[in-house]
Amino acid sequence: MASTDLRVIAAHLEGLEETIIHRLIDRAQFRHNPEVYVHGASGFPDGGTNSLFDLRLLHQERMDAVFGRFVVPEEQPYHATLPQPARRVGLSGNPLDPHGCAAVNRVPEIVSDYLAFVPLLCESGDDGQYGSSVEHDVLAVQAISRRVHYGALYVGESKYRANPDRVRAAASGADEHARSELIALITRQDVEERILLRVAEKVDYVQASLNPQVRRRVDPDIVLQLYRDTIIPLTKEGEVDYLIARAFQPPGS
Amino acid sequence: MASTDLRVIAAHLEGLEETIIHRLIDRAQFRHNPEVYVHGASGFPDGGTNSLFDLRLLHQERMDAVFGRFVVPEEQPYHATLPQPARRVGLSGNPLDPHGCAAVNRVPEIVSDYLAFVPLLCESGDDGQYGSSVEHDVLAVQAISRRVHYGALYVGESKYRANPDRVRAAASGADEHARSELIALITRQDVEERILLRVAEKVDYVQASLNPQVRRRVDPDIVLQLYRDTIIPLTKEGEVDYLIARAFQPPGS
Repeated sequence: MASTDLRVIAAHLEGLEETIIHRLIDRAQFRHNPEVYVHGASGFPDGGTNSLFDLRLLHQERMDAVFGRFVVPEEQPYHATLPQPARRVGLSGNPLDPHGCAAVNRVPEIVSDYLAFVPLLCESGDDGQYGSSVEHDVLAVQAISRRVHYGALYVGESKYRANPDRVRAAASGADEHARSELIALITRQDVEERILLRVAEKVDYVQASLNPQVRRRVDPDIVLQLYRDTIIPLTKEGEVDYLIARAFQPPGS
Repeated sequence: MASTDLRVIAAHLEGLEETIIHRLIDRAQFRHNPEVYVHGASGFPDGGTNSLFDLRLLHQERMDAVFGRFVVPEEQPYHATLPQPARRVGLSGNPLDPHGCAAVNRVPEIVSDYLAFVPLLCESGDDGQYGSSVEHDVLAVQAISRRVHYGALYVGESKYRANPDRVRAAASGADEHARSELIALITRQDVEERILLRVAEKVDYVQASLNPQVRRRVDPDIVLQLYRDTIIPLTKEGEVDYLIARAFQPPGS
């Protein structure tokens, strides 16, 4: 888990694909249930302007924070203010740069992209299964987020180590220019296309034994789209965040 | 969801199989990590004699209770004392008998059987991924529990309605005798065998595209065993609990 070898990292990212696919398919067994995303309609007496989804994400992150989830660099929270861990997380160290890690949190975009994606994933309408819907939403967001941040941090560190001078040169321009130079530097079109094909194939395989009379089938193209438009681009944006912070350490660090 | 038609109920139970399989496979990506099941070793300062698994189950159930999970009859908690729901659950009514529902809670046995099953499911040893392990354990237990209780309650009600006199006659003997009569009455060996075959097949299909270098493969026979030795028998025991309570309503009800 703590390697900077690109092949080891790619293998780990590949192993996370099934979990994402499983969670999306499980969410798709419920209807869209748009009511759960309506601000102020959580049904909680103290819910304020939150939706039921907002509250589920908050409660899940509070619980997970207590269990130490966000001590792990690839586990980034949506909420800035969360309880301290009640236990010491015993994972061994990682090869990442702490300033780089601190610079990467793409969860807000993952959440907003995911919420825009739910109507494609699920049958439209309302089946009353609000609790189950938001439960599965949050599990899906967490699986996507783990993949995005693991990729951003570990691929970022690996590419930095492979050629620190080139990364520093690319990162040294004006902000927007530096970002697009870095994006160009880290983009491997052939790898991305292989991932998209593999993911779409997996969605098909995973559902090969599905009985369409008892379970909703998810279109592989929909999941491919999520990878193409959200997961891969946000991984790369996160990688750029990491590389810029990695290249320019604050003084005294 | 609210039907007493055996075919509709069987279809719903079949649709729950993939979720159970997904969660078991996701848990199997981590090692056994026996430390997380050791009483008193949770690492929480106020953890008492709890294991990390015990605490995760407790925190999850507390959160879920607030969101209204246990208002739904097939969602039974492990813990007797949990917070009240903070929202009204909007699901429409069900055709079940409330006394029957109140008589069925097989979660303690599901938990103990599941914990005995983890060493078969996972690679032995310790990978330090304690938080992820207990997170997936609890999700797996909940998926299994939903299946067991949905089957117990809805199949129970359906069989009662099909022949209330015969159920009452079988249920009227002395306790142990009545249970074995009812078990005989509800057992359909051919249906059970079909379920076992189908589940094992699904485990294979779901993993057909798996890359064994990046992801651990779960043996279909292991999941078949969990269905054969835990899920099906506990569904039937729960069905008997339901039928006895259904047949003998307390006076004044």
